[in-house]
Amino acid sequence: MNPSLLNRVRAENPLVHNMTNQVVANDVANTLLAVGASPIMAYAKEEVEDIVNVSNALVLNIGTITKEVAESMKIAGKKANEEGIPVVLDPVGVGATPFRQRIVEELFSDIQFTLIRGNSAEIATLAGVPWESKGVDAKEGTASREDIAKDLAKAKQCVVAVSGKEDIISDGVQTVKVLNGHPLLGRITGSGCMLSSVCGAFIGVSPTEAFESVVTAHTVFAVSGEWAGDSQEVNGPGTFKPALHDALALLTSEELKKRAKVEEIKDE
Amino acid sequence: MNPSLLNRVRAENPLVHNMTNQVVANDVANTLLAVGASPIMAYAKEEVEDIVNVSNALVLNIGTITKEVAESMKIAGKKANEEGIPVVLDPVGVGATPFRQRIVEELFSDIQFTLIRGNSAEIATLAGVPWESKGVDAKEGTASREDIAKDLAKAKQCVVAVSGKEDIISDGVQTVKVLNGHPLLGRITGSGCMLSSVCGAFIGVSPTEAFESVVTAHTVFAVSGEWAGDSQEVNGPGTFKPALHDALALLTSEELKKRAKVEEIKDE
Amino acid sequence: MNPSLLNRVRAENPLVHNMTNQVVANDVANTLLAVGASPIMAYAKEEVEDIVNVSNALVLNIGTITKEVAESMKIAGKKANEEGIPVVLDPVGVGATPFRQRIVEELFSDIQFTLIRGNSAEIATLAGVPWESKGVDAKEGTASREDIAKDLAKAKQCVVAVSGKEDIISDGVQTVKVLNGHPLLGRITGSGCMLSSVCGAFIGVSPTEAFESVVTAHTVFAVSGEWAGDSQEVNGPGTFKPALHDALALLTSEELKKRAKVEEIKDE
Repeated sequence: MNPSLLNRVRAENPLVHNMTNQVVANDVANTLLAVGASPIMAYAKEEVEDIVNVSNALVLNIGTITKEVAESMKIAGKKANEEGIPVVLDPVGVGATPFRQRIVEELFSDIQFTLIRGNSAEIATLAGVPWESKGVDAKEGTASREDIAKDLAKAKQCVVAVSGKEDIISDGVQTVKVLNGHPLLGRITGSGCMLSSVCGAFIGVSPTEAFESVVTAHTVFAVSGEWAGDSQEVNGPGTFKPALHDALALLTSEELKKRAKVEEIKDE
Repeated sequence: MNPSLLNRVRAENPLVHNMTNQVVANDVANTLLAVGASPIMAYAKEEVEDIVNVSNALVLNIGTITKEVAESMKIAGKKANEEGIPVVLDPVGVGATPFRQRIVEELFSDIQFTLIRGNSAEIATLAGVPWESKGVDAKEGTASREDIAKDLAKAKQCVVAVSGKEDIISDGVQTVKVLNGHPLLGRITGSGCMLSSVCGAFIGVSPTEAFESVVTAHTVFAVSGEWAGDSQEVNGPGTFKPALHDALALLTSEELKKRAKVEEIKDE
Repeated sequence: MNPSLLNRVRAENPLVHNMTNQVVANDVANTLLAVGASPIMAYAKEEVEDIVNVSNALVLNIGTITKEVAESMKIAGKKANEEGIPVVLDPVGVGATPFRQRIVEELFSDIQFTLIRGNSAEIATLAGVPWESKGVDAKEGTASREDIAKDLAKAKQCVVAVSGKEDIISDGVQTVKVLNGHPLLGRITGSGCMLSSVCGAFIGVSPTEAFESVVTAHTVFAVSGEWAGDSQEVNGPGTFKPALHDALALLTSEELKKRAKVEEIKDE
């Protein structure tokens, strides 16, 4: 975890191209602005290459995916690969329908991702491991979350992050756990989608250190959630969301360093 | 009104498939999470049957309807009927254009609804009674709101709810009035849309008692609005929305019972 | 600046048809409700003429534009022109891609606008002046912002507003500066989009005095931002947004008059 990356995000103000879902678009944009990045959303196949081309990262989120937007995602993702711009995949609810699975398979065959971030059920589905889910929310599974992260990271040659009470991040070689967070993060919609875009911002300023960037982004988001959730003004999920955006804007690298609980997971 | 249904929603965590409008999607999702349900949004015709199939209720909202989404709604609604999954219709602004009226007629010919919930102008339009409206907002009418609710309930063989300062709910036989609520509910966008989805959640856990479920959902929403609106931290519509979501999350069945003002309307 | 227009908006409750972007739709609707207007969003080509026809203003915002929605915008805009209903253009990120530029050119050839409102980079692009931008956010330019506003106003025969730390508004003859505002307006997404729709509401009640309406709308929005930003309850961008909506709802014409800082810019 590298707290100075937070300062770099604020100094360099990376542009993050989000192709995200209808439900969270506003929260994703405000999250990126809060943390110090610049959001842009664009979906038309006629312009996604031009938008990607000036962006520091591309984030693909299939939460309310349609065939048309999936086509635009492929165009955008290929262009990003050509130009060396990192691409994040958030496979929302991929296990819920064959349609989403097919789209994600097509994205995998066209695009090399830098990061795949999802909840346990989504990552388990991609890793081919059975997992219980409810719509877009993860329930229980049998395999170790560390193992599915590591296996998928190896298989897809990228960083994999599994969100939950504890976040697991692996690049297939190193694996860490982020222990920060707050239960209210699970009581608002789109906290995972917001986190994916924050990862995009951090990878955007430090693409050659993708693993470190993803760990730092997760820590920033989880610490902000913790800070917001413990605030006096927060009474429930409604007041938590504005407080989360405040915390993302106010968090300093010193505070981040002080609060961070990141643990390396050693192979047994 | 059955306060224990609130506990059931929280225990059973029903999955509500929302095909809703661009404006309110985020608020609908957060409302469902706050009250204890799970939201999912999906629109692609290739997957709506699969999503419906694992859901406890389907909510169709025509607020920013297009021909393509209307087609997906028909597919989803038919599947829901086949599988015995309750379907809620929110006919947003149906009186505003012939296009919306045609779409709603098509939905009616393809789908048996469990609940139709709208404002006075929308329900009057469906009941064939003249009513003044302004865009998607209801104005004044001449017929009794009780009568149009009852007539439409009989005609469509389902529960009908008419929102307003007082909410009227009828299944054609029984009719009740929910007297709770707060003026600020009318000052934020999508309060009706959120309520429709809360109805979906309550019908989802108790489909055989649709009338009771709808009455309870309305009471939960109106009491939460009342509670939020009277809170010290609320200064206007902006701070009201987070407080509403907090209240929906914090409301207990005891508090609900204590605050509920539900009156049976007797035939004269 | 005419403070009494705020009272007129609240008394006449203008209906504003917004064809806006996915990111800000909810905030735009809540902003219009807060200030006293009625929002409606509709995109289907089959109904936009019917919606425009009962509206007091049409606002076209290209933030997440697609070819399909651009077609609907042309239909809506032409109808508005035929019926004498004022049309506002918000050319979000127009300089970012040739696709957006082409769409805006097509809108210009089909529609006579009453107002074009954007940030410096967007207005400079339309005026044919080089300007640095980042995605949808303006950076630095060389020309005077007053000059580009004035030139574009003359060229397009309409009011032009350039948002920034100070807002510039010109109809090609008169030019004013609104000095109110708050830095947090630049830290939330869609503040410009919300402002465009507020302009629509004010022009909607006073279409024959478009310049005065636009100046007043800008002052209302900037003063509300100032008020919200200085509030005790606001700690950052997250808590700022609800406070902004509260301020828009609570601002009186007297308070507006007292706080307004509007300066006429004289030709040298």
